[in-house]
Amino acid sequence: MPTLPQPTLVVRAVPAVTPFVAPEELARRAGRDSLLRLGANESAFGPSPRAIAAMRDAVALSSWYGDPESMELRAAIAERHACGVENIVIGSGIDDLMSLIVRTFCAPGDAALQTRGTYATWAYHVAAYGAELATADPTPAGAVVVDALLAQAAIVAPKVVYVANPDNPSGAFVAAAELTRLRAGLADDVLLVIDEAYADFVDPAALLPDVIDPRTIRLRTFSKAYGLAGARVGYAIAAAAFIEVFQKIRQHFGVNRTAQIGALAALEDEAFAQRVVAEVAVGRAAYAALGARLGCATLPSSTNFVCFEIGTRAQAESMVHTLLECGVFVRKPYAPPLDGFIRVTVGSAAERDRFAQIFSEALERVREKAAV
Amino acid sequence: MPTLPQPTLVVRAVPAVTPFVAPEELARRAGRDSLLRLGANESAFGPSPRAIAAMRDAVALSSWYGDPESMELRAAIAERHACGVENIVIGSGIDDLMSLIVRTFCAPGDAALQTRGTYATWAYHVAAYGAELATADPTPAGAVVVDALLAQAAIVAPKVVYVANPDNPSGAFVAAAELTRLRAGLADDVLLVIDEAYADFVDPAALLPDVIDPRTIRLRTFSKAYGLAGARVGYAIAAAAFIEVFQKIRQHFGVNRTAQIGALAALEDEAFAQRVVAEVAVGRAAYAALGARLGCATLPSSTNFVCFEIGTRAQAESMVHTLLECGVFVRKPYAPPLDGFIRVTVGSAAERDRFAQIFSEALERVREKAAV
Repeated sequence: MPTLPQPTLVVRAVPAVTPFVAPEELARRAGRDSLLRLGANESAFGPSPRAIAAMRDAVALSSWYGDPESMELRAAIAERHACGVENIVIGSGIDDLMSLIVRTFCAPGDAALQTRGTYATWAYHVAAYGAELATADPTPAGAVVVDALLAQAAIVAPKVVYVANPDNPSGAFVAAAELTRLRAGLADDVLLVIDEAYADFVDPAALLPDVIDPRTIRLRTFSKAYGLAGARVGYAIAAAAFIEVFQKIRQHFGVNRTAQIGALAALEDEAFAQRVVAEVAVGRAAYAALGARLGCATLPSSTNFVCFEIGTRAQAESMVHTLLECGVFVRKPYAPPLDGFIRVTVGSAAERDRFAQIFSEALERVREKAAV
Repeated sequence: MPTLPQPTLVVRAVPAVTPFVAPEELARRAGRDSLLRLGANESAFGPSPRAIAAMRDAVALSSWYGDPESMELRAAIAERHACGVENIVIGSGIDDLMSLIVRTFCAPGDAALQTRGTYATWAYHVAAYGAELATADPTPAGAVVVDALLAQAAIVAPKVVYVANPDNPSGAFVAAAELTRLRAGLADDVLLVIDEAYADFVDPAALLPDVIDPRTIRLRTFSKAYGLAGARVGYAIAAAAFIEVFQKIRQHFGVNRTAQIGALAALEDEAFAQRVVAEVAVGRAAYAALGARLGCATLPSSTNFVCFEIGTRAQAESMVHTLLECGVFVRKPYAPPLDGFIRVTVGSAAERDRFAQIFSEALERVREKAAV
């Protein structure tokens, strides 16, 4: 007889892995009060002033629970995507919705397919529910290869296929026609999850049209272009039948009241979001120019971050550490072919200047070490 | 072959039940803009002004993710409970932590034991993970009976025993010595979960001492005495070994950044929380006096709500509907022996006056209907 309460077999088998170490923790380890935060793809341009004002007004009523049905916010989102409120569920960020999707569709041992190296939190939840991760090879630039996913799907018979589009950490974008081809090539009982966290940075005409496919779930967030990462608001767009299933098991009161109000106000200030998208495009171009100047290849990006090629995996890790020592927080892709790259969030103009300075010095140090 | 992606067997078997219909939804159904909110045990006295000020300052930085380790908040909580930060995990409310606990310890088919009629969200999560709910009888006043729990535990061999103390919806409090007797009577491999959501309204000397028991998890929240229900911050106090297991599967970024800052500020304003506790005690006494005046028995309560006896289950349901028609949101216990009661949150003095007026009129209507 065990002498203490034991977790389930599934939970016992989950490895002790934290997908991301936070900048606060990195700062603590480095003995610093703060860091230049270019590692978590937070918006350097903040939330809309209207969202900030709405949240400032809202906090005094924090003693009230938020609407567990998020009706006002869902109505505004449904209007944006030309669907019904019954096609929208709100979560405390896309991560929360990922957990809900894996839990709903993947029993222990079921296969979940993704491109190798994509957003780590999806794989984290796959492991945490005891499902089996299967991966398909990306392009040399880390992009999704539809044929590779289809070939793997034919082998592992996944319950769910996950695609981040635009992808994180590569920044690559797959054309809507390719995703349509992926969907058509998958069996009807395979769920396709399209993580569109960074889709606000893409020309809407290039995205999948706002049509509800009964075998596909799309995920969106207020964390990136809308600058509300700390608020924790994401949403899924799906068939009403799926939303009804989520309704049976989800956290009904999980989304902060002030955050719901802020997200609604952010959605109503589309002009602000468009200015952010334009500023991010300028910043991406500046990073590409910086990379060219320093002899560092950069990857094309459809997001608010850019990957810089450093060299070997060890050199890229050394660069992350060196930047941290200099007070700059960046992350790096964990898997080949991008494990020799670092991923840098588009900062404000001032942040980009500071980064350019520190990065060029750090690059010299890392290259000197490599030359020894 | 199914033509659509199917949820797991566990999720398919979960009944479509929403534990609580929110006041926003009730207002929509009643065609009203707002209701007098006395149904969700939200604090009528709001958050501390210091918490409000801290949150007002914080919202502008909503583009930053909150610290996923919540180190500052956990350190303050650990100091309050004389334990280490390794004994604390933060969730987006106690509901989130309940989900995490059931998921961690209950495989499908495992038994989870509670007192019949207690907080419905616990049973919601038990069902949502496919575990089997077992119940023990309460006292005629809805209070926990330790011997009944022990007798049921001997029969069903639960993985987890859940006790809300003080209890919701009864408001009853079980002495610490009784809980110690419960713990001693359970097998060593049975997890005891003590939901202390309302413990801030109890004299600390009457509570279980702040000692970490390796087989017990205690849950606390900022939603009640601290007036931060809409912020979504709760915590569990447990052995470090349990916290490490939660760390493997929890939502690391689930807690809103501004909420973490607000909770920390609330914790630093203990004088405010104590004034709230005192005002709530005054309000409870006023409700007891109101009940006596109207010939409605009330239950002794150690919380920020009071149960009024209305009559039969149908009469109590009629009262909830009648009050709703008059613009007042209350809830009622769903299970015998309290299903003939309504549960009313302690409002501010003005809210209590308004409630007293409307309730006395509604009581006449419900009694007239019963007399027909």
